[in-house]
Amino acid sequence: MQTKIKKLESVIRYRFKNKELIELALTHPSYESERSYERLEFLGDLVLDAVVGINLFMEYPDAEESFLTDLKSAYVNSKYLHNAGVSMKLEKFIRYRNYEAPRLDNFIEGIIGAVYLDGGWKKVEVLIKKFILHKKIEPIRNYKNILSTLSKKHFQTEPAYDIVSEKGLPHKKIYNVRVKIQGRKYVGRGTAGTKKDAEMLAAENLLFKLEKYRKIKHERPLNS
Amino acid sequence: MQTKIKKLESVIRYRFKNKELIELALTHPSYESERSYERLEFLGDLVLDAVVGINLFMEYPDAEESFLTDLKSAYVNSKYLHNAGVSMKLEKFIRYRNYEAPRLDNFIEGIIGAVYLDGGWKKVEVLIKKFILHKKIEPIRNYKNILSTLSKKHFQTEPAYDIVSEKGLPHKKIYNVRVKIQGRKYVGRGTAGTKKDAEMLAAENLLFKLEKYRKIKHERPLNS
Repeated sequence: MQTKIKKLESVIRYRFKNKELIELALTHPSYESERSYERLEFLGDLVLDAVVGINLFMEYPDAEESFLTDLKSAYVNSKYLHNAGVSMKLEKFIRYRNYEAPRLDNFIEGIIGAVYLDGGWKKVEVLIKKFILHKKIEPIRNYKNILSTLSKKHFQTEPAYDIVSEKGLPHKKIYNVRVKIQGRKYVGRGTAGTKKDAEMLAAENLLFKLEKYRKIKHERPLNS
Repeated sequence: MQTKIKKLESVIRYRFKNKELIELALTHPSYESERSYERLEFLGDLVLDAVVGINLFMEYPDAEESFLTDLKSAYVNSKYLHNAGVSMKLEKFIRYRNYEAPRLDNFIEGIIGAVYLDGGWKKVEVLIKKFILHKKIEPIRNYKNILSTLSKKHFQTEPAYDIVSEKGLPHKKIYNVRVKIQGRKYVGRGTAGTKKDAEMLAAENLLFKLEKYRKIKHERPLNS
């Protein structure tokens, strides 16, 4: 583990005073459930959100809150963080006992928590700027939120989501989701590997239909 | 407004260098949509989460991540923040043009954002400790998350929520929600003023039934 830690330190360009912290950050609960990254991940998640949000707030002094929220989502969502872990070759440094390799986003958050505890705000900000904020990316629009807001405004009701079908093995599911607004005929549909993603696609699909048939007017058009 | 700002400064025991910031924090979008608390609220929300989370992390060195998450929820949820606003008599200082008084939680987050920008981390931490973290409160258990985790573990599927009925005027709705796990006979039911609260109650109700009929075993019993 010591050689691994040294190598990782040179990848992230941060040397830990307390090596126990980085060891914890690299330990999946399947390896040692009592001594894993879980608490550090809780901390890192909050610190990451705050650092990213504060930096975007400063970088876009004229942007609306909704733009900042969507752009922050793009930088802190689990897929983007997992890919940051891949580009750091994190899989070479982690410890786990699962039958398949665990997602890397939780380790990223664990490392952020560990660097914050060991080195403080300034050091963790350098790390986040280097590995998370270094790329210009597109905001992620939260279509479920947009649909909910518009539905309450135009139809005085919340949209309702249904799981139409759920197929595949436990760890490789395909969700088929439908969304409707009570008393309205249009239906949005979405299919994806997680319930949340399928719902997001269904919401986007319903928004598209409602706009097309001019049932709603959108302040920020969908294709903006 | 200047007298109001002076009075509020003495309530929160913080004097702003830049008075424009606190003026923004006290302005509801209904009063002036282009110059309201919205950006500050985005910032304050993140800063509040991080300050509360970091303080709980330090205060409970042996607590599990799930306990920290639930306790943080209790300190940053909108009801608790609204009540903090009530105890600060915030309604005397805010500007709005709605037909009824707006919720105070967004103003609290706006003020936190404003103090952070004006005075930095240390000052905002003092404010949060004084008005948010000063009380010992109970963690809020997220029953939807608990049900989702247990359902995936025991039944390899996500629970499905349905809105059974939705009654009342647009701003005073009563939601009646049902939750089921595909292929299982027990149904959880919940009724509340928001969809989320009704779902949470339905999840708690279904968890109670599943435990009672020994369909699941809980690591942390519901009545702990």
